[in-house]
Amino acid sequence: MRAGELPHITADILARLRARAPRVHCITNSVAQTFTANTLLAAGAIPSMTLSADEIGAFVSRADALLVNLGTFDETRRAATAAALDVVGERRTPWVLDPVFVDRSEARAVYAKSLVAQNPDAIRLNWAEFITLGGVEADDAALTRYALDTLAIVALTGTVDRITDGAQFVSIENGHPLMARVTAMGCAASALVAAFLAIESDAFTATAAALLAFGVAGGIAGERASGPGSFPAALLDALYALDKRALSEKARVT
Amino acid sequence: MRAGELPHITADILARLRARAPRVHCITNSVAQTFTANTLLAAGAIPSMTLSADEIGAFVSRADALLVNLGTFDETRRAATAAALDVVGERRTPWVLDPVFVDRSEARAVYAKSLVAQNPDAIRLNWAEFITLGGVEADDAALTRYALDTLAIVALTGTVDRITDGAQFVSIENGHPLMARVTAMGCAASALVAAFLAIESDAFTATAAALLAFGVAGGIAGERASGPGSFPAALLDALYALDKRALSEKARVT
Amino acid sequence: MRAGELPHITADILARLRARAPRVHCITNSVAQTFTANTLLAAGAIPSMTLSADEIGAFVSRADALLVNLGTFDETRRAATAAALDVVGERRTPWVLDPVFVDRSEARAVYAKSLVAQNPDAIRLNWAEFITLGGVEADDAALTRYALDTLAIVALTGTVDRITDGAQFVSIENGHPLMARVTAMGCAASALVAAFLAIESDAFTATAAALLAFGVAGGIAGERASGPGSFPAALLDALYALDKRALSEKARVT
Repeated sequence: MRAGELPHITADILARLRARAPRVHCITNSVAQTFTANTLLAAGAIPSMTLSADEIGAFVSRADALLVNLGTFDETRRAATAAALDVVGERRTPWVLDPVFVDRSEARAVYAKSLVAQNPDAIRLNWAEFITLGGVEADDAALTRYALDTLAIVALTGTVDRITDGAQFVSIENGHPLMARVTAMGCAASALVAAFLAIESDAFTATAAALLAFGVAGGIAGERASGPGSFPAALLDALYALDKRALSEKARVT
Repeated sequence: MRAGELPHITADILARLRARAPRVHCITNSVAQTFTANTLLAAGAIPSMTLSADEIGAFVSRADALLVNLGTFDETRRAATAAALDVVGERRTPWVLDPVFVDRSEARAVYAKSLVAQNPDAIRLNWAEFITLGGVEADDAALTRYALDTLAIVALTGTVDRITDGAQFVSIENGHPLMARVTAMGCAASALVAAFLAIESDAFTATAAALLAFGVAGGIAGERASGPGSFPAALLDALYALDKRALSEKARVT
Repeated sequence: MRAGELPHITADILARLRARAPRVHCITNSVAQTFTANTLLAAGAIPSMTLSADEIGAFVSRADALLVNLGTFDETRRAATAAALDVVGERRTPWVLDPVFVDRSEARAVYAKSLVAQNPDAIRLNWAEFITLGGVEADDAALTRYALDTLAIVALTGTVDRITDGAQFVSIENGHPLMARVTAMGCAASALVAAFLAIESDAFTATAAALLAFGVAGGIAGERASGPGSFPAALLDALYALDKRALSEKARVT
């Protein structure tokens, strides 16, 4: 994939997503659940969020992708993740790991590393989280090595999003500074990556496309919102209406 | 009740609800809690959402209605439901069952059937959920039979809402397509049914009136919102301001 | 502190808060989590909300303030609170108690009293909650006595907010009636008190300043919002943009 093709590819995946309405099961933190569900619905996917170990197998076996987000992690979410990864392993369902706040808790960092070893298709994280998991500063060489080591697409998001599979590398400079002043933005971006992985089998392309869609929607929201309060609704409105023209005009991909 | 009277009846129940501010205790899923609380507050009711088995009895014994919603169900919610239904049974407090996603999990469907046997005043569900619980396609005859079997008001919501007590039948064609692109809309509608049951002792009328109020508010929101992001706030604004005139002008009831 | 100085003091604390971005760990109810996180982010603080007993110590030891809110309380939150208060006691981290709905559950009232005995820096509550904990009507004399007994800043919020340390007394008449029609407003105000306590060591000043900031933002939101649905986003937008001029013009402090 060449960087210049990403806007068109993103529009194509989004069109297929809207037509197929994939089911995305989310093990995610209690703070992000509502906005994550609404992000998936605005994009055209169908979210579910049950955590009970008795039932999660049934949900994941009917899902097209899985998100494991470590925010507000607890025993229930740990048992849910174990049960969900069993199903995902059997069925080859794509899944995304979002290691929220591993820089704040050693126990969580240890657990996150055990999940990385279970072959997520993509890992989306920020700089502090990468440094904790990767053990080094998050420069391009470190990201590349981490992708080769984990066999996952590594997506480091921030002012610039950097995505690599260890061979290819793409940078996206969309989004908006208000995204740092609203909770659950990264969490919802990870869920959107899962939805794109349900539709597009090339995991590098799917991950980059999802982050471009989210970033362009965020940029449009930043122009329209009056502040961080009105930003999340504006982002969902923009994501729902996102089309090839807006993607092409606004994408800043290299 | 004749269909043509429903808008006026709805305005009357809403006026009484705003004056009396009934307490509605909600056992509901973690994704829907905030929007459900805000729906109840916008309508004039007072929500509470505690799940702890130690405390839920105290909350439900002071509540005027109960909602049991099966989304993100787990052991805590199961114990909470058992304790809450004990209190509700003693005090004859009205309660609503919302069997979310019973079509996704066999265990949940079995559990939902055990709750149906405990005499909810109303059951609100969608087509896939009805087919799972009712065992047949959701045509008018099947809904009527299910209402007679369960002795509950059965409210099947979707593009058209259909409500029956087994003898009377009403259809409401309000709402807006964006309601399918935002989480917790059905969950909040069920909570509003509980609030109306706290005010109006005729359960068929209360259920139909609540769904008309929610549907008309949703239709107004659909005209004002820029997409699914701005839709929930617009719905709450419309529900808060809902009056006899808007109900009469916009109701599509047969 | 004289009442007339509070707007300037509030602007000063807010400027320091935005510069330092303190971390506020929140043990709070599931209904309020998202709005609380967004309130802290809009003000310039960094929220975290993990409840797991395994991890909460690590989070609280890296936090600059703690909130303990008793909404939707349960065994998990009780264990989290015990672990968090151990850390807070060792490190002298400021913490706020918000005894939500102690008037609805005897068990919760008993537990809240045990927390009051563990020296919160501030207690924010409404009239019904004060009567339950204080055992008397919430007049100025009772608030003063309660502050002297508990050695906490007592902040009673409602149409008028009244804050006392047992010696000083301030009343704030900002806010907006719509705040009673949206969930989590009091919960978010308590979280903002925690953020201000992280920045300002005079606990009486910090508490009064946080409630003035929240109240002025609420008043601005009330002018802009179309109802309770659009109110929360408008409040966050106003809080994010809040400056010395708006505080000085709009503050109603005596």
